[in-house]
Amino acid sequence: MKQKKNVTFDDIARYTNFSKTTISRYFNNPDSLTLENQEIISKALEDLNYKENKVARILANGKTEFVGIIIPNLRNHYYSEILNQILLSYEEFGYKFLVFIGDEHQETERQYIQELMAYKIEGLIILSFTIPSRELADLHIPIVTIEREDKYVSSVNTDNYMGGVQATSLLLNHNCDVFIHLNSPTAPDVPAYGRIQGFLDICQENNLNHKIIYKMLGTTYEQIRQNLSEIIAQLEQDYPNQRKGIFVSNDTDANVLINLLLQKYGKLPEDYYIVGFDDSPISSEAAVPISTVGQHIDQIAHEAMKLLVEQMNERKKRRPMPQEQPIHKVITPYLIRRATTEKD
Amino acid sequence: MKQKKNVTFDDIARYTNFSKTTISRYFNNPDSLTLENQEIISKALEDLNYKENKVARILANGKTEFVGIIIPNLRNHYYSEILNQILLSYEEFGYKFLVFIGDEHQETERQYIQELMAYKIEGLIILSFTIPSRELADLHIPIVTIEREDKYVSSVNTDNYMGGVQATSLLLNHNCDVFIHLNSPTAPDVPAYGRIQGFLDICQENNLNHKIIYKMLGTTYEQIRQNLSEIIAQLEQDYPNQRKGIFVSNDTDANVLINLLLQKYGKLPEDYYIVGFDDSPISSEAAVPISTVGQHIDQIAHEAMKLLVEQMNERKKRRPMPQEQPIHKVITPYLIRRATTEKD
Repeated sequence: MKQKKNVTFDDIARYTNFSKTTISRYFNNPDSLTLENQEIISKALEDLNYKENKVARILANGKTEFVGIIIPNLRNHYYSEILNQILLSYEEFGYKFLVFIGDEHQETERQYIQELMAYKIEGLIILSFTIPSRELADLHIPIVTIEREDKYVSSVNTDNYMGGVQATSLLLNHNCDVFIHLNSPTAPDVPAYGRIQGFLDICQENNLNHKIIYKMLGTTYEQIRQNLSEIIAQLEQDYPNQRKGIFVSNDTDANVLINLLLQKYGKLPEDYYIVGFDDSPISSEAAVPISTVGQHIDQIAHEAMKLLVEQMNERKKRRPMPQEQPIHKVITPYLIRRATTEKD
Repeated sequence: MKQKKNVTFDDIARYTNFSKTTISRYFNNPDSLTLENQEIISKALEDLNYKENKVARILANGKTEFVGIIIPNLRNHYYSEILNQILLSYEEFGYKFLVFIGDEHQETERQYIQELMAYKIEGLIILSFTIPSRELADLHIPIVTIEREDKYVSSVNTDNYMGGVQATSLLLNHNCDVFIHLNSPTAPDVPAYGRIQGFLDICQENNLNHKIIYKMLGTTYEQIRQNLSEIIAQLEQDYPNQRKGIFVSNDTDANVLINLLLQKYGKLPEDYYIVGFDDSPISSEAAVPISTVGQHIDQIAHEAMKLLVEQMNERKKRRPMPQEQPIHKVITPYLIRRATTEKD
């Protein structure tokens, strides 16, 4: 491979007869030059086939334009779509993204954050949940979290409470006899807990016979299948011939639940009404299309970047005003009715 | 937020009574110092609460430890899982990843590559297919592509031909009367074309009645559903009462096809035998679990990084030996038999 010699500020200065200081000003504060001189330098860069060295520029002005992202995994459709949307924001905001997969290991994530700090990231978006927000706030850099505990840092979350209310109300409209919510154990300071609270409030306001099943379904398909089979057996023992309204915390699990019922009965039994969460592709592609609560992932990603950019811009001012309080933005979800509830 | 003053090489030199040159050698060539002196400096860094500034270090030794990634999207499970596995390789290789979503726009991807070059990436992994490999080779940096045209650059791909042979042979073993392959139009220089060639070779060797349906199914679920419905109607008109063996180019489409049949007939009809591709989660989670050809995504990602790291390391030598020819690694896929073929 041939290695081209980089064009330096010296080369540009010699070519244009400007001083190196003027060339440096062109890159770091172009408005301080006349339009005519900007034009001359711009033309020289073309003539010399100048390749910008952003690393050198960073050292001059201290701005890397890097944003760090720490995300638990990309297997879950919600995470991969959030990352998709954040990365696409480059077109609007111009920030470049250094991405790490945390995989739920707290110590590893701490190490990733140190690595990101060493690369002088200007801000950080965190979706993983292992590190308390108190500790994140102590990094003293702009941070926005998405769907995790966020007491001490700014965040963008879905209105999970509203989502829980929407899902449960849909089941209520179909006159279910018993209302089940299936979820993994969730701490009250996590935004997704709102789904549980929304379910509980609708059930209690309407004096509904209800039950929450807290269960880690597992990480492999075999485990999830086994656990959901046991849950179906238990429900059929506890509530025979009763119309069961089941609100499942995500579409992936809802789809597996429905497919187990299809494999057992050849169709979705009349006494099952099911609502998922996320409006992920599987909810429409399923054998029985799944009613679900959709999250506006594009909006969530966009608001997160907007909030982060505001903080990052503030820091570039001569006298930055530190943010007094974390800002928490909440995005309203939407309900989609499909065949798992609309049977008539 | 409080802003801490960074500790500089000057501070460390003063604290340890070493020269600044010695401190610089500690960071860039530690083996040139005695173990004892390394120890003294290491302790000083702790005492001074030194935060490493990698940007400064890059300028000193020219090594950013950045690898750029350009990927078409993260909606497709194959892409998000490849990215997942590449990002996890940080643990082994230590490279940091700057990630861009190309979204199939050639000009945008060219701009991303310029941006990555400006940040002095040491290497590039490309999954998107808009830019010819000839043009990529002209960047004169280490590059590895995955599953795209790769004539002039190194690559790691699944043995798609073997995958096509495995899928078609499975249908042959079940004595299908007619063999259908459903795929989008694919250029012969793209690795995935091997699936088509493998299908064709098995059909021709065995004098099988066969047909390839080349069709862009669409980007929205409604389009995909509509197109697959029309394909089913055509197949049933052309091959009534014949045992149809259908090899679908990915599990997502195979799942939608199967669910359309379930919605039409209440079960997978006896005369349909279906094989997908990818072993993505939906293939096991489907209402009728789908036989499929699995790609070793973890291996593909690992081999791609290994190949890239070899090229990047070569460049760091005092007299790098340029790579004579692109290297193409091929990973063997595996066949999984599930309910869409194993009916007896």
